[in-house]
Amino acid sequence: MSQSSVSNVRIRRFSGGSWSEDPDLVVREEPLEIRLGLGPRESREQESISVTMRTPGHDFELALGFLRTEGVIQHPQDVHTVRYCTDGGRKEEQENIVRVELNEAVPVDLARLQRHVYTSSSCGVCGKTSLEAVHQLCPSTQSAHAQNFQLDAIKLTTVPEAVRNAQTVFTHTGGLHAAALVDSSGTVRLLREDVGRHNAVDKLIGASFAKGDELLDTYALFLSGRAGFELVQKAAMAGIPLVASVGAPSDLAVSLAQRTGITLVGFLREGRFNVYSHPQRIRH
Amino acid sequence: MSQSSVSNVRIRRFSGGSWSEDPDLVVREEPLEIRLGLGPRESREQESISVTMRTPGHDFELALGFLRTEGVIQHPQDVHTVRYCTDGGRKEEQENIVRVELNEAVPVDLARLQRHVYTSSSCGVCGKTSLEAVHQLCPSTQSAHAQNFQLDAIKLTTVPEAVRNAQTVFTHTGGLHAAALVDSSGTVRLLREDVGRHNAVDKLIGASFAKGDELLDTYALFLSGRAGFELVQKAAMAGIPLVASVGAPSDLAVSLAQRTGITLVGFLREGRFNVYSHPQRIRH
Repeated sequence: MSQSSVSNVRIRRFSGGSWSEDPDLVVREEPLEIRLGLGPRESREQESISVTMRTPGHDFELALGFLRTEGVIQHPQDVHTVRYCTDGGRKEEQENIVRVELNEAVPVDLARLQRHVYTSSSCGVCGKTSLEAVHQLCPSTQSAHAQNFQLDAIKLTTVPEAVRNAQTVFTHTGGLHAAALVDSSGTVRLLREDVGRHNAVDKLIGASFAKGDELLDTYALFLSGRAGFELVQKAAMAGIPLVASVGAPSDLAVSLAQRTGITLVGFLREGRFNVYSHPQRIRH
Repeated sequence: MSQSSVSNVRIRRFSGGSWSEDPDLVVREEPLEIRLGLGPRESREQESISVTMRTPGHDFELALGFLRTEGVIQHPQDVHTVRYCTDGGRKEEQENIVRVELNEAVPVDLARLQRHVYTSSSCGVCGKTSLEAVHQLCPSTQSAHAQNFQLDAIKLTTVPEAVRNAQTVFTHTGGLHAAALVDSSGTVRLLREDVGRHNAVDKLIGASFAKGDELLDTYALFLSGRAGFELVQKAAMAGIPLVASVGAPSDLAVSLAQRTGITLVGFLREGRFNVYSHPQRIRH
């Protein structure tokens, strides 16, 4: 196991109706920016072509695989060098930018590449810096409603089944992520499904926004999958005080939840769950 | 259940050691582009700010939720109108572009937005058109190796456990997607893990590329999660003849596999699987 792939956390574990406090491991998640060096030697250009949230490790392979599957490179000899871009910053941040130098003769249609590259989420390149930025954008979790929001532990354990029962499309295709707003009594109030987890959350937040709810500070957000940084960031922007996921959280999701005052719950299944931050909102 | 959320397919099902042919449903996946109309009435500007792969339905909510969680809009009165952009194209394509008109007074820092928007994948906006484009880019699945690649059905059912046993980080954190290259004997040859499914696949393809393997036409690609369009597209670009996922495929993934000659397997678990395209590569 690569040491850099995991991060240590302390959690509060709810299982069999009682609590314990334990050390645990979460997977690391950091942004990776891919930059391309291209053109003739005397006038090299640099283009930033992608930022993706990834688990650190095999970063050069990730950059090459991305360029290969985007059709930018076809042959190993298209690539001159691959290296981390070490312009300033902490060591961890330096390893969040990979620069691929193409050989001079490789033609790159940047316009096509831009058109063919999708956008999916939020934040900057350097974990720390973007956390600061997001934190400043999200004072809303400090609302009185958010501060006082509480949910009963046993009620929380019933949410996955309630959501699953309401998930009509998943039942037929097995192919959808669900996101749901849950009130302080543990009742599912709104459900959205999508092939993309972040889309299901955007649909929930957009539905409430369209009805005039600027803040969702009286709801918990339930996620049928894992809790990554992007999803906690969306919850923070909407003022949601509690995020509970069936799957595992990443280390960056835990950090962001801690900093923005969000209660983060993971592995919510079979009557059990782990709390990664601000446990005071779970009553028992 | 929204009719537009699912698509009908015919599959070959392998279960209990024997085959059947059945109708089935898969979840729909289509690109959605979000465009922003902004600025004073006499000189409105239009900016394309995001393309995401999503399940059609609640598209206006998705657009509003995205803008809300990116910090572009804060109050319902920031939004003037939300509508589909109906400039030409088939009806399905018209419903793949949502245009949000902001009220004149809403300040938008497009530079900040660009910096804070992630890119994650490939292809254009209109399902059909992008399929054509990708198809033209991917003649590699027609290689002799790809044509002749075959895998035994029983061997295929053993792959998930072999991958799980090799997944060291998942074991400790439960937080990672795995992607693996599997040879024609059913042996796992290379494994990569990441919080992002597309990253795990890029790392695999990049690792092989770095070793000089331009085409991966003698391997199957195993995915621990679901098979979306992006992942099948990456397989097609790398010349991989067979994609097998533990989870469900989307309709766009099935279409792309059919068109590019890829054998697409889904729900590969507990000794069973479904085949969505080109079943001749599964021996039994």
